[in-house]
Amino acid sequence: MSITSFNPPVRTLMGPGPSDVHPRVTGAMARPCIGHLDPAFVGMMDEVKTMLQYAYQTKNQLTIPVSAPGSAGMETTFQNLLEHGDKAIIAQNGVFGGRMKEVAERCGATAIMVEDDWGKPVDPQKIEDACKAHPDAKLVAFVHAETSTGARSDAETICKIAHDHDMLTLVDAVTSIGGSELRVDDWGIDAIYSGTQKCLSCTPGISPVSFSERAIEVITSRKSRVQSWFLDTNLVMGYWGANAKRAYHHTAPVNALYALHESLVMLQDEGIENSWARHKKNHLVLRAGLEAMGLSFIVDEEHRLSQLNAVTIPEGIDEAVVRSRLLNDFNLEIGAGLGALAGKVWRIGLMGHSSRAENIFLCIAALEAVMSDMGADINTGVALSAAQNAMK
Amino acid sequence: MSITSFNPPVRTLMGPGPSDVHPRVTGAMARPCIGHLDPAFVGMMDEVKTMLQYAYQTKNQLTIPVSAPGSAGMETTFQNLLEHGDKAIIAQNGVFGGRMKEVAERCGATAIMVEDDWGKPVDPQKIEDACKAHPDAKLVAFVHAETSTGARSDAETICKIAHDHDMLTLVDAVTSIGGSELRVDDWGIDAIYSGTQKCLSCTPGISPVSFSERAIEVITSRKSRVQSWFLDTNLVMGYWGANAKRAYHHTAPVNALYALHESLVMLQDEGIENSWARHKKNHLVLRAGLEAMGLSFIVDEEHRLSQLNAVTIPEGIDEAVVRSRLLNDFNLEIGAGLGALAGKVWRIGLMGHSSRAENIFLCIAALEAVMSDMGADINTGVALSAAQNAMK
Repeated sequence: MSITSFNPPVRTLMGPGPSDVHPRVTGAMARPCIGHLDPAFVGMMDEVKTMLQYAYQTKNQLTIPVSAPGSAGMETTFQNLLEHGDKAIIAQNGVFGGRMKEVAERCGATAIMVEDDWGKPVDPQKIEDACKAHPDAKLVAFVHAETSTGARSDAETICKIAHDHDMLTLVDAVTSIGGSELRVDDWGIDAIYSGTQKCLSCTPGISPVSFSERAIEVITSRKSRVQSWFLDTNLVMGYWGANAKRAYHHTAPVNALYALHESLVMLQDEGIENSWARHKKNHLVLRAGLEAMGLSFIVDEEHRLSQLNAVTIPEGIDEAVVRSRLLNDFNLEIGAGLGALAGKVWRIGLMGHSSRAENIFLCIAALEAVMSDMGADINTGVALSAAQNAMK
Repeated sequence: MSITSFNPPVRTLMGPGPSDVHPRVTGAMARPCIGHLDPAFVGMMDEVKTMLQYAYQTKNQLTIPVSAPGSAGMETTFQNLLEHGDKAIIAQNGVFGGRMKEVAERCGATAIMVEDDWGKPVDPQKIEDACKAHPDAKLVAFVHAETSTGARSDAETICKIAHDHDMLTLVDAVTSIGGSELRVDDWGIDAIYSGTQKCLSCTPGISPVSFSERAIEVITSRKSRVQSWFLDTNLVMGYWGANAKRAYHHTAPVNALYALHESLVMLQDEGIENSWARHKKNHLVLRAGLEAMGLSFIVDEEHRLSQLNAVTIPEGIDEAVVRSRLLNDFNLEIGAGLGALAGKVWRIGLMGHSSRAENIFLCIAALEAVMSDMGADINTGVALSAAQNAMK
């Protein structure tokens, strides 16, 4: 055995995440490691919490980064809120609603599923019906921005319905944070989780979560212990809480948190509304190019995410070959379809630092080059100018 | 709000972890992020697995890094092996045996505790007695290297006893991997977890685990689902497994794995026996200095870890002030006592890249300077030469 250092190729990341990480963020990550109880580190933790509150538009005290990827953030919210025998209403309109069901059931809860077609938003009327049919449900859970389809659901309306039925709300914001309007307090979200590797453009591995006072009451008055010691918010609060004396719980991923801190400073400096607007603007530019080429979106315009563009694949084209050639010839990554949409769509991400004009030009030019070379039935020679015009 | 980039102080880390991270490792971490399904990344994953097998001295196919810190590695092993109603024999001789109990009970298992004094190794005779008294126990779990006390237990003997009683063995190697002799296959360890931030001198946040074929049989033939979807090895194997087609499970912490890869290349290049020997040699040097000063170790020489040196505090000295002054005046971090030993000992780490002569000189000189200034009852002017002599 003699393995040498790994030097990754330099890619442009336009898949469903991770997105391009700004050199400021990887640079921060490379700063010297210090102790997870070092006063200097504790000061940085407070700043991370403050900036996460900003990213989530919340005053929730319990707004912290879980030391693991978004899936662990999902488990943190479900495992802390649910106990054996509880009922949870869960909306599914893509892959991640299905994961919520898995996670809720593993907590010993019953999942009441509310299904919508993949590519459609969650239908508030169906949520209302489910709340009426199951008044004993503890919470309503749904995905704000479905990464598998590119559909955005109306979180504000769904949360209002749940609260009218006196249920907690639990929201997956993995793909929305930083890229789509998201207002935890105004919309009445009780528990939320997200990831760092999408519109925050940080490296993957951390999951910011936030809990309302109402959710904290539920957590602190549980009858049983949280299934996971690692994700037990009652314990994690001792380390991340407001108390000046931070108690050791687990060793925090120090350098990953440097990176998150830097990405949040960049978000703060841009301004969150500006970030949302940038994502929207660049989406329109990409859309102009893709539609000129003849590709179509699977999500209605009204519910379409700016940061995750799911488009159909021209007939007769081997989509995996296209992705492979984009990667090998142009170092460009776009995403495959997932679950029920595998082989049927591409998912083109415009997330965080990936959401910029250079990437859009590359994506349009490279897609057109590869597909026309493969004889795909697309319009050639028009996409780039359509995008340029949309930019004006 | 206007928060600026975080620039950590440059510390020397001689606590219980994280240890000093070599610039090669932080440099690797700062390389460009690529997709977690990128063929280039998948190739790197295979190398990480191969090098983790080397670090653990095992041929176990299921040897992978869990995408979260050591505590999540602990949960991975317990949650995958235990089901509701199972019995687990758990040794406790410090903080982490107690955490094992918490984790096992949250799996719905009964913990049969085998207690030894803090600072002592686990007594194999007591394990033998517990196995006889509880022949229906599924596994025996213990900490190889107790980070809270600095005691090393005889893993080989304990594993043999457990196997003689047809029980699985589950070992915490968070502090031992890379720093103390550890032979998963030769010793018959069925499930093991560790951390990256100690003797591997990587940044914190990842937990390497390994499962024997016997353990995998238990996991794949469970009656119930694993409590955690995120840590369910049956699912994680689809991403990290031998199958060439890697299935998406969760988004891997790409850059953190670059860092782990680099730290494992460094371990490979040094040679694992050489790394064990270096930790031993440097421990003897530090010991000579500390003992000359008048400090004494709380663990018997025979069971003492090289990488974690727990020493008593001179009477009448405010130990927190000493640590604070070491940090503020010399940028040197040493560890406080934990749990039952809080306020009673210091824990001085010589882990991975922290285990080198420069650090020992600094530690001895700084400790002597601070303590003599505080009027502690120690021998002055002799520690450094004692260490220098021990180095010969």
